Amino acid sequence: MTLSAVKRFLIGRPLKSTELGEQKFNKKKALAILSSDALSSVAYGPEQILIVLITISSVALWYSIPIAVAVLFLLTALILSYRQIIFAYPHGGGAYVVAKENLGVNPGLIAGGSLLVDYILTVAVSISAGADAITSAFPVLHEHNVLISCILVAFITIINLRGITESASLLSYPVYLFMLALFILIGVGIYKIVTGAVSSELHTPIGTPVAGISLFLLLRAFASGSSALTGVEAISNAIPNFKAPAPNNAAKTLMAMGALLALLFTGIIFLSYYYGITPKVDETVVSQIAAQTFGRNFLYYFVQVTTALILVLAANTGYSAFPLLAFSLAKDKYIARMFSMRGDRLAYSNGILTLGATSILLIIISNGRTEQLIPLYAVGVFIPFTLSQTGMLVKWFRERPKGWALKLLINFVGALISFMVMMIFFITKFTQVWPVLIFLPIIVIGFHRINRHYEAVGPQLRTTADDPVIPIEGNIIIVPVAGITKVVENSLNYAKSLSVGQIIAVHVSFDKEDEKMFEEKWKKWQPDVRLVTLYSGYRSIIQPLSKFVDIIERKASASNYSVTVLVPQFIPKKPWHNILHNQSSLLIRNFLLYRKNIIVTTVPYQLKE
Amino acid sequence: MTLSAVKRFLIGRPLKSTELGEQKFNKKKALAILSSDALSSVAYGPEQILIVLITISSVALWYSIPIAVAVLFLLTALILSYRQIIFAYPHGGGAYVVAKENLGVNPGLIAGGSLLVDYILTVAVSISAGADAITSAFPVLHEHNVLISCILVAFITIINLRGITESASLLSYPVYLFMLALFILIGVGIYKIVTGAVSSELHTPIGTPVAGISLFLLLRAFASGSSALTGVEAISNAIPNFKAPAPNNAAKTLMAMGALLALLFTGIIFLSYYYGITPKVDETVVSQIAAQTFGRNFLYYFVQVTTALILVLAANTGYSAFPLLAFSLAKDKYIARMFSMRGDRLAYSNGILTLGATSILLIIISNGRTEQLIPLYAVGVFIPFTLSQTGMLVKWFRERPKGWALKLLINFVGALISFMVMMIFFITKFTQVWPVLIFLPIIVIGFHRINRHYEAVGPQLRTTADDPVIPIEGNIIIVPVAGITKVVENSLNYAKSLSVGQIIAVHVSFDKEDEKMFEEKWKKWQPDVRLVTLYSGYRSIIQPLSKFVDIIERKASASNYSVTVLVPQFIPKKPWHNILHNQSSLLIRNFLLYRKNIIVTTVPYQLKE
Repeated sequence: MTLSAVKRFLIGRPLKSTELGEQKFNKKKALAILSSDALSSVAYGPEQILIVLITISSVALWYSIPIAVAVLFLLTALILSYRQIIFAYPHGGGAYVVAKENLGVNPGLIAGGSLLVDYILTVAVSISAGADAITSAFPVLHEHNVLISCILVAFITIINLRGITESASLLSYPVYLFMLALFILIGVGIYKIVTGAVSSELHTPIGTPVAGISLFLLLRAFASGSSALTGVEAISNAIPNFKAPAPNNAAKTLMAMGALLALLFTGIIFLSYYYGITPKVDETVVSQIAAQTFGRNFLYYFVQVTTALILVLAANTGYSAFPLLAFSLAKDKYIARMFSMRGDRLAYSNGILTLGATSILLIIISNGRTEQLIPLYAVGVFIPFTLSQTGMLVKWFRERPKGWALKLLINFVGALISFMVMMIFFITKFTQVWPVLIFLPIIVIGFHRINRHYEAVGPQLRTTADDPVIPIEGNIIIVPVAGITKVVENSLNYAKSLSVGQIIAVHVSFDKEDEKMFEEKWKKWQPDVRLVTLYSGYRSIIQPLSKFVDIIERKASASNYSVTVLVPQFIPKKPWHNILHNQSSLLIRNFLLYRKNIIVTTVPYQLKE
Repeated sequence: MTLSAVKRFLIGRPLKSTELGEQKFNKKKALAILSSDALSSVAYGPEQILIVLITISSVALWYSIPIAVAVLFLLTALILSYRQIIFAYPHGGGAYVVAKENLGVNPGLIAGGSLLVDYILTVAVSISAGADAITSAFPVLHEHNVLISCILVAFITIINLRGITESASLLSYPVYLFMLALFILIGVGIYKIVTGAVSSELHTPIGTPVAGISLFLLLRAFASGSSALTGVEAISNAIPNFKAPAPNNAAKTLMAMGALLALLFTGIIFLSYYYGITPKVDETVVSQIAAQTFGRNFLYYFVQVTTALILVLAANTGYSAFPLLAFSLAKDKYIARMFSMRGDRLAYSNGILTLGATSILLIIISNGRTEQLIPLYAVGVFIPFTLSQTGMLVKWFRERPKGWALKLLINFVGALISFMVMMIFFITKFTQVWPVLIFLPIIVIGFHRINRHYEAVGPQLRTTADDPVIPIEGNIIIVPVAGITKVVENSLNYAKSLSVGQIIAVHVSFDKEDEKMFEEKWKKWQPDVRLVTLYSGYRSIIQPLSKFVDIIERKASASNYSVTVLVPQFIPKKPWHNILHNQSSLLIRNFLLYRKNIIVTTVPYQLKE
């Protein structure tokens, strides 16, 4: 069993179900794993704001400060509202559960559907960005971008199949190193400003009038900056992965993440403003800040390398959240049941594998150019943000627990801003985000169809005393025979052992003379087994055989007989021998397998050489 | 059954075996189909000679005339020797059969193997050349070269699956148009020379001394020119496709092809010499001759278009010869049996499909740049040429029929020249042809391993009176049960109808408490069916189940009992529902299917909704 040895090597020994407790996150690991997506946004969020503002003039760049304040305000609102969600829904599920319970099934499915797609986009976008960073450093590899991305996805998929704590241990170092690098950068930068080492004339003072600025543009810049907030919902989806008491630990992790995100975001925006940095096509804003602060020395490369790493790791947030969301949807029967089963290492392997496969597909289809997907991805985040906040609003209003007015206010502000950001995206970037309006309805309809099917199947499977199965009266066993061989003898031997059956051997011949000869030989060899020969003028085995089986089946079902077709299966000594045999068996089996009343039995015949 | 409708549309209605006679070639069609490869070589063969000579100087170009005489001599020898092969081996098989019967198995397999590979190369090379011609005319398409090649291969594959006469009817027009075009070109060219419209000073007189010419170079030019002879063996492989009397018709077709090839080859070489044409990178020699003869008018484009067409059609020769050669090899058990079966339209579909698939693979791997394969392809032709001529030599010497001395002489000359050309290729182009020395041994070893397997299987399958099968004493039927459902009830109902069996229901549980509850429920529901519950700490169904089956199997085989595992199969109303069910069944089935002593029975359960 080499296959299982490879599996064992890649993902480790299976874990017992009782080991589940040991597979849970402590806060430090959770912070690393679940906030890498949000924190990595610091690497591109501030830049997104500057890119919009620079279209007016470099004078307009001071607007990045008030816009950053607005983003921070939105961040605070989101963190506080998600904190409330964590305590109200300690079993996780995030936006999907909140929206479903308070707003109804469809809003829930819209939230769940857009998050599922979003996690796939997260993985594709951030891995491609990481691959770009690698190939920028090693231009030789540039033409292999797609291949490198796929290898990275495969690597993260395998790491996650090993189970969540193991992936957390391995993947949390780069996250903390990234934070360290940025804090050093911000600290040194501010120190230089305070000590007067940086000219204060590099930037335009705040409040300088700007010709041609418009509200539309400012909103667009704000919306672009808000894309730095994608990923803050991940913790609320993943509460079941926390060590007990899960909600408290999750809430504390969320607050820590919010604080870190706010500090890093503010620091980067402030330095870029003070240094008067303008976005460039071939160098990121963070790289420019680092180069100005340190010069191109070791610290500069430390910032660059950890930034590239965290962009790749942002994908990992998707790997934590996607399987849990899929589990919630599968439990409610909106997606296939297999997403609700834990694999060998206690992770939801099917979710992880699906995420990996779809991301690779997306990377290949877009040929590694995933930048165009970013707005799509951002709008896909603010839809569930809005729905979950609105859901909480409704909940507080309905239940009115102690102190509900403040709670309602927090979620109201969260819902309002999220909705505004979503609308700004739709208005200012419609050409890029319209696909959401097509695929979301398709996904929701798909959820409903799957659900309807599962709901319809339930009663059909239930055993009822008043509708007992009618016992089968007898069996007809059909044995297709190609010649007079040991294989046929073996199959007939088995057929005869099921003594109750009526055995019919069927031979398909392509030649009238051969047919006669075969019949005569058969009579001598198996005089007690009835032989039916079918002449096939078109050299097809399947067609005459399946016609014959149909006729028998019709007669049999009338008198409540079962029909079994025995198909021989060569078991060769070496696997490659399989391509030399079994072609007809495979064809017959696959053709009959989906017939509603035909039982297909595979009788092995072992070859000794 | 949409799939079979598509198949019917693409390849037409199935033909009865008795319609085989109507599917044979008359001479006119055979000439078109089987000589397109050889005739198309006229489009590049003469040029190959000039390319080698021009490396010395344009003075050396007169050597093309004596070299052409040598090529014509080789052509005559080959045609006469293959004519003798046709009459000696009227059932076809060509070089493979001749070499095998007279020289032994390994020379036969070397000849057969190199021809098989060669036909794949023919298709890949000539289709790529055709695609180049198309995209030279429409540069917009240039980046889609590979795709266009693949579509062309698919097209020719489908045409050939429709059966040989249909493909011949459709594909013979371009071949005759090409001949017509070249004859007009040569005729007008000679007329102009005779009437003195062409200056006689464009060329160096024959015999002019050339500085720096060497035997090595002349041999190289001769070998390059001999590549125009690839394809002359096709007719001898395809004799079974001719109308009766097949050998006579094939021989006449071969002679006609030889005459045509000689005329066209001589004409082109003569015109290019007289016009003093030097090979150019961006214009073919034939194009230069046509432009000088006609000017760039309709006739010029007629020559160009028919040349492009015949290059594509050269591939079709491979489609006629490959399946027949594969049939001969399969009949002798050197490749998989499936190559010996005729498809719906009486062509050997598996051979045609294999040829199409491998050519597409080759085109994709080489990214459409197949020029480097040409020398490989030429040497791959002269190996079987040499072997078949040598085989005939041995045959005449052994059998000594009437007039054997002349026959022997013809084949001796053929063998000698073929061998020389082959050696010239190895000596002058070793850097390009060395892969032959690696893949040919691999192929021959592969043939032997397949043969050894089939030969070993034969006796194992033969029924013998002194080694009767021991009747099975009884049956143990294992029914894996997931829950108490109608599906299980249905399977048990079938199991019980096989009254001889001992039934064991097996339940795999992931939780000790669930296990107890299940056992109690079962006792009430099916008190007479023995239930075994297996606790799976690792949440795997397969592992404990297969361990259990193994234990039962060991006990059973000791007392000559059979072990049958019943696997339920949901038959949903809509095909897409399959992904929502059957995952566990599929897993169990595939896991047990290749166990040597386990009989796997699939019991369908039809869902009503």
